[in-house]
Amino acid sequence: MIKYPKGQQPMHPPVQGTQNRDIIYGSRGMTLEEQINLSNTYYLQQKRAVIYKKPTPVQVVKVQYPKRSAARIVEAYYRQPSTTDYNGVYQGHYLDFEAKETNNKTRFPLANIPIHQRQHMQACYEQGGVVFLMVAFKRFKEIYLMPYEALADLFSDSQVKSIPYDYIQNRGILCPQGLYPPVDYLKAVDTYLDQP
Amino acid sequence: MIKYPKGQQPMHPPVQGTQNRDIIYGSRGMTLEEQINLSNTYYLQQKRAVIYKKPTPVQVVKVQYPKRSAARIVEAYYRQPSTTDYNGVYQGHYLDFEAKETNNKTRFPLANIPIHQRQHMQACYEQGGVVFLMVAFKRFKEIYLMPYEALADLFSDSQVKSIPYDYIQNRGILCPQGLYPPVDYLKAVDTYLDQP
Repeated sequence: MIKYPKGQQPMHPPVQGTQNRDIIYGSRGMTLEEQINLSNTYYLQQKRAVIYKKPTPVQVVKVQYPKRSAARIVEAYYRQPSTTDYNGVYQGHYLDFEAKETNNKTRFPLANIPIHQRQHMQACYEQGGVVFLMVAFKRFKEIYLMPYEALADLFSDSQVKSIPYDYIQNRGILCPQGLYPPVDYLKAVDTYLDQP
Repeated sequence: MIKYPKGQQPMHPPVQGTQNRDIIYGSRGMTLEEQINLSNTYYLQQKRAVIYKKPTPVQVVKVQYPKRSAARIVEAYYRQPSTTDYNGVYQGHYLDFEAKETNNKTRFPLANIPIHQRQHMQACYEQGGVVFLMVAFKRFKEIYLMPYEALADLFSDSQVKSIPYDYIQNRGILCPQGLYPPVDYLKAVDTYLDQP
């Protein structure tokens, strides 16, 4: 018989870590991106939505073609993405969003969202897309969905360098977190869509 | 005074080649991908739609960080994309499509569409997306939009190895081609959306 250390009993379905939130989101230290990617896999399996993170754009300069093996890129550079990181389709809605986390406890610095991403968000919003920012306050283990409507005025005012935590609490929608999906942000999208 | 060779008089707005279709789409030899990318830039400028080609996914193995210059990828490999190449938003609709060209005059070989792309198309379609294939018959200089509905049965039958040209003519929607945008496929999307 195998003796498991305390809190490490095997579970069905098998998972790493336990159901204790602190262990999952503290020690285990999943990044927001990892949480979203796992949630997207879950949504896809459950046929709830089809949402992907876009690949990081890479400028390929030099490729070698070795015999009988895959093409090998030997010189390339990261490029600035011109769009947000995530998009997809959910019940007929076009979803488009960017995800960022911060260690700050009082505000979210807007320097995190470069100008071309803001322009992209605006363009998608104008086409009728559901556009938002996901902000994780790591110290509070909170993840908010901030609808584009609540960001537009801030984006257009070049004096605004950050979003206060209070504002995000007021205008954002808190995303439920759990084991699987790690962040059930479609619940927050539902809340957003149900608003009059 | 400058003497221009025949057919090379300067035009306003300045363009390469002339308005002769054969020269533009023949000699100039724009690929379908180039035609679509330029059209997407046009759509974005005109605020008609926000559609992008996804970056090719690259598995980065080794990166160097030279002092005072950009990170340099020195070993990487191309990965199989798990989705289609293009997606975006058009008047509230989620658009998702793959674009392929063929030199074949009688059929479009389905080996061009790997299984994971077909699954992705189906998943997007089930979520209410506008999903299609763009097929260019290079010999005829024709580009068709094939709605997913016209492909689903063919995809699910493993005996079907290609789509006859006749079928594409019947079930597909011919996309207007011009100078700018090079391929006005949103016109074909409109036709599709107007169908009862």
